[in-house]
Amino acid sequence: MVSVIFPAAGQAKRLKAGVSVNKALLTLAGKPMLVWTLLKFSSLDEVGELIAVVPEDEVEFVERLLARVPKLKPVKVVAGGAERQFSVANGLKAVSTEAELVLVHDAARPLVATATIGRVIAGARVTGAAIPGVPEKNTIKVVNSDGMVESTPDRAKLWEIQTPQGFHRRVLMEAYLAAMRDGFVGTDDASLVERIGHPVQVVDGDNWNFKVTTPEDLAAAESFLKNDLAVRAKEGVSAAADLVADKVGEMKRQLEELRK
Amino acid sequence: MVSVIFPAAGQAKRLKAGVSVNKALLTLAGKPMLVWTLLKFSSLDEVGELIAVVPEDEVEFVERLLARVPKLKPVKVVAGGAERQFSVANGLKAVSTEAELVLVHDAARPLVATATIGRVIAGARVTGAAIPGVPEKNTIKVVNSDGMVESTPDRAKLWEIQTPQGFHRRVLMEAYLAAMRDGFVGTDDASLVERIGHPVQVVDGDNWNFKVTTPEDLAAAESFLKNDLAVRAKEGVSAAADLVADKVGEMKRQLEELRK
Repeated sequence: MVSVIFPAAGQAKRLKAGVSVNKALLTLAGKPMLVWTLLKFSSLDEVGELIAVVPEDEVEFVERLLARVPKLKPVKVVAGGAERQFSVANGLKAVSTEAELVLVHDAARPLVATATIGRVIAGARVTGAAIPGVPEKNTIKVVNSDGMVESTPDRAKLWEIQTPQGFHRRVLMEAYLAAMRDGFVGTDDASLVERIGHPVQVVDGDNWNFKVTTPEDLAAAESFLKNDLAVRAKEGVSAAADLVADKVGEMKRQLEELRK
Repeated sequence: MVSVIFPAAGQAKRLKAGVSVNKALLTLAGKPMLVWTLLKFSSLDEVGELIAVVPEDEVEFVERLLARVPKLKPVKVVAGGAERQFSVANGLKAVSTEAELVLVHDAARPLVATATIGRVIAGARVTGAAIPGVPEKNTIKVVNSDGMVESTPDRAKLWEIQTPQGFHRRVLMEAYLAAMRDGFVGTDDASLVERIGHPVQVVDGDNWNFKVTTPEDLAAAESFLKNDLAVRAKEGVSAAADLVADKVGEMKRQLEELRK
């Protein structure tokens, strides 16, 4: 059985919402972001447990909100901590001992493809630790606190890492206990697992699976969900590929015009 | 005077267009991507020279295409090379000796904000080398050829680098001559400048300024240009900020409902 923890206790600082709000509760195309995310995982047979981690004073609200969502498997709602890592740790305490695998997925990645989730589950079953990623498309630089470039790492070896990150339950438990003991805080769950010397496998992520962080991301996610582009693309209809074909056709017509 | 080189000789490999097409000529919201990009720079008083670098067999077409675009400053169209770096080198040969600064901008970043271009120009005037970037939001990992994680660099020091990258003409010339002499190929222009020991400053980029690489990017750019969201956001109206305010209002209403 697969259990999934959704850290959703983050404040929407970079969204510049003007007020202190829980980003995961912002509405996208008619539904709170957290609901879109939960529904995606809830639709998978392998997923037997959903655990949402929210700020302590929102636990009751979120329970009531989720109880009204049709077709959603039951969700355990637990109180989070001050940092993402502490929230995941609280979620881990609520994981059933019957779970073979534990996945951790950012509530703010509502557009993840079910195929990506499937690859993470399949990988984690074999290696004990699998995370989705895409080859880095941008040049990344190490920049010092004065804003000057220190170095440019070789892009060919860099991957942009996404979630869900999947682990054998025991591996993740051990990694979290070690991190808590040593006061280590990482930016993702895999970094805790790497620390205890367990190998971590990277599987293919998907390009729609971005984290909603900025107002621009929110606009993009809203636009995708409204147009159903992301959903259709993931179901194999590949609306994006159709769009590219349209563009190629349009370009060819324009070039023909110019040839005249 | 500022001269801007636009490498636009790249094939649309990752767009999976099915045919070999020049990505920069794909139409977005009615105009080829390259035209959107050129118009953005053409609107700036400081920019006195525009140089588009395209595949050799498209030079004539592109000249004809651009001649028909209203409100566009004259554009020199030159033939590119097999790699981005060789294309930029060909563009550099066409730069007027009257240019104090040379900017290099990916034709495939049509949504760049004029404010970002302004920060690069201002920075490059002072330091001789300025590039736009945004703090990395994702966890980046170094992954080996077997798909296993090698390390997780500290995200706090990582920046995602964009274009335009701006340089004193002499600095960029020297960097390119040294790279060509040594057979060094980098993923961006600044890496060539770093190699010759010249300091490079990072200025604030913007979140709309992504490179159109995947079908998903193409869909996002099209959607932004059609809704004029990016344009309005950059003109200070901040459509994205309005959207966030709307979402916060919507969420509050939903929470109020649940409180009843």
